[in-house]
Amino acid sequence: MEQTINRGLDGVYIDESAICFIDGAKGQLIYAGYDIRELAGKASFEEVTYLLWHGALPTAAQLEEFRRQLAPNFNLPEAVYQLFRALPQGADPMLALHSAVSLLGSLDAAANGVDEDNVKRIGMRLLPQFPLLVAAFQRIRNGQEPVQPRADLSVAGNFLYTLTGEEPTPAATRVMDVALVLHAEHGSNASTFVARATASTLTDVYSAIGAAVGALKGPLHGGANTAVMKALESIGSVAGVEPYVLDILGQKGGRVMGFGHRVYKVLDPRAVILKDVSRALAEESGDSKWFEMSLEMERVMDREMAKKGKEVKPNVDFFSASVYRMLGFPGDIYTPIFAVARIAGWMAHLYEQYADNRLMRPRLAYTGVMDKKFVALEQR
Amino acid sequence: MEQTINRGLDGVYIDESAICFIDGAKGQLIYAGYDIRELAGKASFEEVTYLLWHGALPTAAQLEEFRRQLAPNFNLPEAVYQLFRALPQGADPMLALHSAVSLLGSLDAAANGVDEDNVKRIGMRLLPQFPLLVAAFQRIRNGQEPVQPRADLSVAGNFLYTLTGEEPTPAATRVMDVALVLHAEHGSNASTFVARATASTLTDVYSAIGAAVGALKGPLHGGANTAVMKALESIGSVAGVEPYVLDILGQKGGRVMGFGHRVYKVLDPRAVILKDVSRALAEESGDSKWFEMSLEMERVMDREMAKKGKEVKPNVDFFSASVYRMLGFPGDIYTPIFAVARIAGWMAHLYEQYADNRLMRPRLAYTGVMDKKFVALEQR
Repeated sequence: MEQTINRGLDGVYIDESAICFIDGAKGQLIYAGYDIRELAGKASFEEVTYLLWHGALPTAAQLEEFRRQLAPNFNLPEAVYQLFRALPQGADPMLALHSAVSLLGSLDAAANGVDEDNVKRIGMRLLPQFPLLVAAFQRIRNGQEPVQPRADLSVAGNFLYTLTGEEPTPAATRVMDVALVLHAEHGSNASTFVARATASTLTDVYSAIGAAVGALKGPLHGGANTAVMKALESIGSVAGVEPYVLDILGQKGGRVMGFGHRVYKVLDPRAVILKDVSRALAEESGDSKWFEMSLEMERVMDREMAKKGKEVKPNVDFFSASVYRMLGFPGDIYTPIFAVARIAGWMAHLYEQYADNRLMRPRLAYTGVMDKKFVALEQR
Repeated sequence: MEQTINRGLDGVYIDESAICFIDGAKGQLIYAGYDIRELAGKASFEEVTYLLWHGALPTAAQLEEFRRQLAPNFNLPEAVYQLFRALPQGADPMLALHSAVSLLGSLDAAANGVDEDNVKRIGMRLLPQFPLLVAAFQRIRNGQEPVQPRADLSVAGNFLYTLTGEEPTPAATRVMDVALVLHAEHGSNASTFVARATASTLTDVYSAIGAAVGALKGPLHGGANTAVMKALESIGSVAGVEPYVLDILGQKGGRVMGFGHRVYKVLDPRAVILKDVSRALAEESGDSKWFEMSLEMERVMDREMAKKGKEVKPNVDFFSASVYRMLGFPGDIYTPIFAVARIAGWMAHLYEQYADNRLMRPRLAYTGVMDKKFVALEQR
């Protein structure tokens, strides 16, 4: 029997969904009907989350009600701080986030219900808690006390506030908000797919979101933005970019992080927007080094790929690295920040999955031997 | 463009694999060439794990070396006990296991490497640690001190020993060993599939195993054995079985837990073996109630399904419930015990996945609206 093997599940449709449309050939990303270029910079992260969860942008009254419901959930149980304090110095921030999500599940006596109301209740908790988790982890490992969030601030604002302990500037909050909107959702990427597959056993939301955090951590997924920053830091100067890129491309299987995408064959629209944000931050701050290094890397990659007849363009992770750097974030929390945004998309997909579930149970084609006769240990 | 939707990924082959072959039509389960009926009761869980990880049963010398390498890893860091002590009474045992796996990752300074050596190193730790985690959680929530494992005992023996604090009888150890062998591996079931999909981002082993634990927890997967026991306990007597089954079958979408399987269309070979184990335990112990209730449930299901022209047979979860009950385990740790066995299979699949990886990135068919024009909040 001939079996078609779908490694990587490229082009395999696992379900229908009304959340997100990506046209990789056109470089188009649509959230529930709206082009990402229409939303970024105009709609707040809260509005976009509402859109992803309800299929329509909120009216002013609906948005106010949504914020009113989120407000009391800007807080973390003391047990989470204890967990972070107990972690060894150098613990991976994504594993810490993973542990925290799991702990929040254990602390939630109603964790296991997967009816619509309970799933939404948990979503309304995790959305405001994710930024607090990342900020608290960062402060605690720095020997600082966690900052208590403010119910009057947005998700973006509370992230910056609880990270720094200072009232964030409107400009920084706007940039953070744009970054969250751009990372909020992206169809059945690996982490969202893993969240849906995990939920397909009708396990609880925390288990499904924990699985997604684990998948996002990988360098072929969300871990890429941290890898981009590590590369930029190791290069250190605009002049160092070209030899770095040529060195990597000369290695067998060498891969320059932050370039190329499974779905986008032209420019990732999120990269276009983040490039503008990065340029503006560089101009405002006067610290243009990271942006200029990024431009140089894009230029060298363009030239080298053209020699091979290829187009390999920057993806969302590429310019987010310089943006987050200019906002002052340490490089290894870029991936957790990705999770702060993507929890919006993950939850949208969990609503769909639980509402009309079928257990995901694919096949593996067996290539091993058959009909082996058992031989007792003494005779082997 | 017409898109074929593969909900549940039924019949979709995601890769080749030399680990496991299942013939659902014949009721056959093969671990790396050996029929499960050849292995259960003859090969120990350690031998079967070696088979799944190396593709061949070990010689006596190889098995001795394997056990020698496992022996020092029968221990848990103090931080795990602290975590369990900090959990609220009533915390879900699978969420606790999930948290513990994640914590073990944070405590492992070399967690992130996915080269073969590092993946095997972590496998050799998690295999002996999983039974200790389940036993320690159970003791701590009961207000008991965890029992320190013994390096001279097997995985099955250490599970029983650290759970009860008493030297397990050879008979109990043998039954436990058979149960572990039967649950060790089952192809690309949902949790194994989720482990592979998570690992496909090249994230670390702990994140992938944590995701698998989260998936296994669901009632459509490993959670079923706990659900079977809950049902038997709520019924309480052989006479209560028939009205219970008829009541469930009379409900819209009603599903009797422990019956039917996505892959097996005839009897699950593991259920056949566990039925014999259950019968033997009932005879030895003189406590035949749970076995007789199970027989009665099988009889009523057979009759009722025959009326509909269907055959819906007991699966692995069905007779494992009465077996675990007669071994004295509380019902809500049956699913964690499943994980104690399945870590063998999960790790085997992670070796394959990391050795020849491709990021899993399927598609969702967009059914939402398009081309919505953005309207500012004030105008909505």
